[in-house]
Amino acid sequence: MRPQIVLFGDSITQQSFASGGWGASIADSYSRKADVVLRGYSGYNTRWALFLLNRLFPLGSGTPPVAVTIFFGANDAALIGGTGKRQHVPIEEYKDNLRKIVQHIKNNSPDTLIVLITPPPIDLQGRREHARSLYGDKASTVPDRTNEESGLYAEQCVSLAKELGLPSINLWSKMQETEDWQKFLSDGLHLTPQGNAVVSEAVNKVFDEAGLSALPYDFPPHADIDAEDPEKAFVQQCAAI
Amino acid sequence: MRPQIVLFGDSITQQSFASGGWGASIADSYSRKADVVLRGYSGYNTRWALFLLNRLFPLGSGTPPVAVTIFFGANDAALIGGTGKRQHVPIEEYKDNLRKIVQHIKNNSPDTLIVLITPPPIDLQGRREHARSLYGDKASTVPDRTNEESGLYAEQCVSLAKELGLPSINLWSKMQETEDWQKFLSDGLHLTPQGNAVVSEAVNKVFDEAGLSALPYDFPPHADIDAEDPEKAFVQQCAAI
Repeated sequence: MRPQIVLFGDSITQQSFASGGWGASIADSYSRKADVVLRGYSGYNTRWALFLLNRLFPLGSGTPPVAVTIFFGANDAALIGGTGKRQHVPIEEYKDNLRKIVQHIKNNSPDTLIVLITPPPIDLQGRREHARSLYGDKASTVPDRTNEESGLYAEQCVSLAKELGLPSINLWSKMQETEDWQKFLSDGLHLTPQGNAVVSEAVNKVFDEAGLSALPYDFPPHADIDAEDPEKAFVQQCAAI
Repeated sequence: MRPQIVLFGDSITQQSFASGGWGASIADSYSRKADVVLRGYSGYNTRWALFLLNRLFPLGSGTPPVAVTIFFGANDAALIGGTGKRQHVPIEEYKDNLRKIVQHIKNNSPDTLIVLITPPPIDLQGRREHARSLYGDKASTVPDRTNEESGLYAEQCVSLAKELGLPSINLWSKMQETEDWQKFLSDGLHLTPQGNAVVSEAVNKVFDEAGLSALPYDFPPHADIDAEDPEKAFVQQCAAI
């Protein structure tokens, strides 16, 4: 009934409804206008995400989403020599997979607003502390991700968005505009409430610019209801839709 | 595709995806299992909610929700002599309207878990301060709601749940078990993050007891994916569904 906004991504999307989360914040902004649908898959890279496309975005679906955020890369950029090596996807394939995801959605619904979001920066110190908190002395001393490598993936994501004429959010760059950007990351990778706020502000800005915030309320605001004749407001609203 | 959990109510539901909100918390708990659908309508009472039923819960719908929270009463209990008088619904009608909402949903899907939630307590002092913050000296000195009146509505809500054999959450009582319960309310009526936590814990408990937390993940956890042969995990998952 209501338009849908789909958030598609990895754990940074899956966790986006935790307290202070960016997904919940978008859902709050659109609380009477659109359903925000959480499609975050912890640990997934773009290669594995391809297996989900036919189920998440079925071709021939009568009611495609008005907007989709695509937020992958943090796992693709895991180093081939680190503990996350099974998640690693080569950078050219990452870009190609992102393209396939976009094309799949566009094939079904050319008008869907697609927003590409790059992986966040990596705080090596934060990653080390996180590993030590989990494994103590047995923690690997080899980094699972580096900021430089994630930056290369972010570049490819933005480059694809330009190529396809899509809006993008370069989270990797944007966060590092703040001097103490490490505060945005809870374990050197995932987001703190402050980090979540960076994402929700950026996503809301892109949605605003695309006119999404002008979506209508799905039923009359209560102040428009005549207490003596409430039916009137609902008949009018239905006629208008 | 995924089962749906619908949160149906007034502003305390509509605002439930704000930071620390109870709705977002449920969505987080079910982030890979169910879609939490926000159907909160600020200012609405049960009388006006009836106009929404055919649209929100269409009869003959093939995929009814697995669970629905019904969380009304805060506006129904507005005093007939106060500034919220247009929202007031007599207590017998409140109970009767709740019954109609339940019956409408049950008619279409007898297996849907329906949870009735009572209005929260009212902190008169908090309401006064809120009115003064908005209107200064022009704020009405007549209360728009009282704790006693809301308590009567809460009783009727719980009584109906017992009568229909439904689980209920007596938020009015539960919050007042804490000595400084006023901390749960931001303006004497709506919820602070602490107040939201009371709701999300109670709802999660009811859902747990009904077995909802055993809903399956919608795709394989990433640790179950064989990096050398990822397709296998997805074929198995699809066969299992």
